[in-house]
Amino acid sequence: MPEDRLPSRAEDFSEWYNQLVLRAELADYAPVRGCMVVRPYGWALWEAITRELDRRFKATGHVNAGFPMFIPKSFLEKEKEHVEGFSPELAVVTIGGGEELEEPLAVRPTSETIIGHMYAKWVKSYRDLPILINLWNSVVRWEKRTKLFLRTTEFYWQEGHTAHATAQEADEETLRMLDIYADFAENEAAVPVIRGRKSDSEKFAGAACTYAIEAMMGDGKALQSATSHNLGQNFAKAFNIQYLDEQNSQQYAWTTSWGLSTRFIGAIIMVHGDDTGLILPPRLAPTQAVIVPIWRKEEEKSAVTEKALQLEQELRQTYRVRVDLRDGLTPGYKFNDWEMRGVPVRIEIGPRDLAAGTVALARRDRPGREGKTTAAWDGLPQSVGALLDEIQLALLARAKKFRDDHTQDPADYDGFRGAVEQGFAVSWWCGDAACEEKVKEDTKATIRCIPLEQPDGKGRCLVCGKDASRKAVFGKAY
Amino acid sequence: MPEDRLPSRAEDFSEWYNQLVLRAELADYAPVRGCMVVRPYGWALWEAITRELDRRFKATGHVNAGFPMFIPKSFLEKEKEHVEGFSPELAVVTIGGGEELEEPLAVRPTSETIIGHMYAKWVKSYRDLPILINLWNSVVRWEKRTKLFLRTTEFYWQEGHTAHATAQEADEETLRMLDIYADFAENEAAVPVIRGRKSDSEKFAGAACTYAIEAMMGDGKALQSATSHNLGQNFAKAFNIQYLDEQNSQQYAWTTSWGLSTRFIGAIIMVHGDDTGLILPPRLAPTQAVIVPIWRKEEEKSAVTEKALQLEQELRQTYRVRVDLRDGLTPGYKFNDWEMRGVPVRIEIGPRDLAAGTVALARRDRPGREGKTTAAWDGLPQSVGALLDEIQLALLARAKKFRDDHTQDPADYDGFRGAVEQGFAVSWWCGDAACEEKVKEDTKATIRCIPLEQPDGKGRCLVCGKDASRKAVFGKAY
Repeated sequence: MPEDRLPSRAEDFSEWYNQLVLRAELADYAPVRGCMVVRPYGWALWEAITRELDRRFKATGHVNAGFPMFIPKSFLEKEKEHVEGFSPELAVVTIGGGEELEEPLAVRPTSETIIGHMYAKWVKSYRDLPILINLWNSVVRWEKRTKLFLRTTEFYWQEGHTAHATAQEADEETLRMLDIYADFAENEAAVPVIRGRKSDSEKFAGAACTYAIEAMMGDGKALQSATSHNLGQNFAKAFNIQYLDEQNSQQYAWTTSWGLSTRFIGAIIMVHGDDTGLILPPRLAPTQAVIVPIWRKEEEKSAVTEKALQLEQELRQTYRVRVDLRDGLTPGYKFNDWEMRGVPVRIEIGPRDLAAGTVALARRDRPGREGKTTAAWDGLPQSVGALLDEIQLALLARAKKFRDDHTQDPADYDGFRGAVEQGFAVSWWCGDAACEEKVKEDTKATIRCIPLEQPDGKGRCLVCGKDASRKAVFGKAY
Repeated sequence: MPEDRLPSRAEDFSEWYNQLVLRAELADYAPVRGCMVVRPYGWALWEAITRELDRRFKATGHVNAGFPMFIPKSFLEKEKEHVEGFSPELAVVTIGGGEELEEPLAVRPTSETIIGHMYAKWVKSYRDLPILINLWNSVVRWEKRTKLFLRTTEFYWQEGHTAHATAQEADEETLRMLDIYADFAENEAAVPVIRGRKSDSEKFAGAACTYAIEAMMGDGKALQSATSHNLGQNFAKAFNIQYLDEQNSQQYAWTTSWGLSTRFIGAIIMVHGDDTGLILPPRLAPTQAVIVPIWRKEEEKSAVTEKALQLEQELRQTYRVRVDLRDGLTPGYKFNDWEMRGVPVRIEIGPRDLAAGTVALARRDRPGREGKTTAAWDGLPQSVGALLDEIQLALLARAKKFRDDHTQDPADYDGFRGAVEQGFAVSWWCGDAACEEKVKEDTKATIRCIPLEQPDGKGRCLVCGKDASRKAVFGKAY
């Protein structure tokens, strides 16, 4: 850990973020423009995310598969809106095995097209539906401005691709996956989210309708944290996914796709982190508790270390725990190091604790004396478990409060301009793209989503004053 | 499942393999030359493989990370042998975001070079070593002749990359990982393997020494099932991975790399499968037991189905079990279907079983009456568990016997020619590449490995008659 301090969040949020990602060894810049190396600590966090999502996907009947990274360029041209959306950002392989390829291959920016091609081959009858496949892989989009985790040329994600016999089933699936993302975000990552529909200008290229979960970062800006698309019959028609229904007549299938990426790691960093470093939600933290043995005299060392290792053995039956036995570093250095890495609980054990049969527990989300308690060896796993649960809930509550404190329902357009400078504005919107565009030009804020949960009644569009039946969440976005 | 039968293994082993992979829905041909789609059933098998390997890697101190799929072409040119080995089979990205790239990017054929670049940046002192990183990803090699799982343009694998302070540590690591692969192959996949060193002509491009595990397939041919490379200081010097040792002097690190790929699925298919289809080792089988309810009259259906579901609930606490409730298919059709998919145990339950409180258990590795027993509902999980263990051991024993029956120690070169037509020849070799080359020209067999376990004493090279201190395993290989 470098000696110099992190910039504070108030001072320079963006630089605080960049430096924290590097110093906590979550990721590093790769030698290829816009690409990142996800380092072991960041990857362990991603593994925790994948574990919790994968469990939810499988519990709802989805299965995983592996699709190729290369897609014939012509495939991308089969769906009109899709090609317009993705063509400008493709990486293209033109040489294979030393020879120029007859048809260039795109490195997948997303897999709807090759999925469409294969589903058309596999689906013959209504008996073959639904297909509920998810892929864990990486995709490539040639981004102009990149930022670790938030926007990189290559990023890791999961992409679900389903095909159904009816429009209703596809719609239910799209919303089911949105709910799974929201449940994961709130209950695993302690990141409160708004579930909503995207306006037409923000929807996925080729979708009939896009839903998203939107979260507020520590600087008041929005991060689209996962999306779920109802693709209607657009891709089924472009790739000819047809099935014989029970009445023996040919029908086009209805498809969906949905994804969550390593971008979500950015959300965890920016929602919970403080000026000291990361704060990881206990349920996803690669290390939930770190034990730091403390001694002054050399003769104290072995007794303290032995007890620390014994407690680790006990705790690791249930929790992800490690002991910091590094030589030549002071306890203070170790405290700072683990605080920077966001480990939720620190367990300190020194010579006086040996006599008393206790340890000190320090919680990462409440620095200083306020967050410190003493716990007995006896029942320590229960004490640590309870504290981890408490921290998990406290992080969610704090993030919710922050979001509420930075969300306004402005009375007029002037108030609106002020609101989106600090956070979200939840305002009536007539549904007209022109009003959306004016907001963007005036404030750089966009419609993050039209929340699924709407107030009763109607109102007047904050921009044009016409009748409006829906409120939208406006904010500046990453 | 198509009505027509699989070709028999004796008739056409290669076509038996190709059709089985497609019919069991393990994989399908992708629309890009030489690429495959790994279908959910095949992917579930790969997930089981990754789970068991990942557990072993983590238990020996390794951590996972994510490295970019793109490598600047110049990186691949820094290690002389490496570039010669991999240049001819690269896929190259020349266009990104609509513009020609200044430096073309190779899609990684393997990651030693970009690993070397990053390790050079991360390693400063002996305190930073060892680095023990593993990657789960896919790589691309432009292959001329491809075959599902065995040789595809893109394939899935893990690649471990470690850096150490001493030559001895690197050597120990290389052999430790070889042992992990052998342990995994024998105890999880029931695939007996020979651990050995590769001859210079067969070693990895850029390695000081390559070790491999070699298995014999059902047609007597060899499949290199995993490799572990001691890279010496070759990559450390090419990428300048240097550290300050305890005496404060600069040293080059010693590195290793090791990998196992989706090719291993090919080994599982070809070692255990029979003319009826796959036979999956219980420890890796995505479905370990399938329950098939049987009824003649409609009024029997609900009672049988209810009991089948109840048994499934009980069994799935411990095992991966499913009930086949598909309508409109006969029990016979279902039996064939699950046999083709290699599910180790079939549990049949019919109206007579309801009265008796029993089920019939059929084991996949012993078709017909011989493999059928009756078990009581009471204690069924124990019965199924014991049977799965028995099948696991029986598969390994059978594969070992097959290998032994097809391995010879020929007395002369004529006998040797005959031996490598049916399987392995284990013969004294003088170590001269010319003798190796002559064998290859005469018989198409190659040295699969020089086994770590060697007989005492010395002998005479089977090819040239000169003194030889090592025996080598010769065979034709996939």
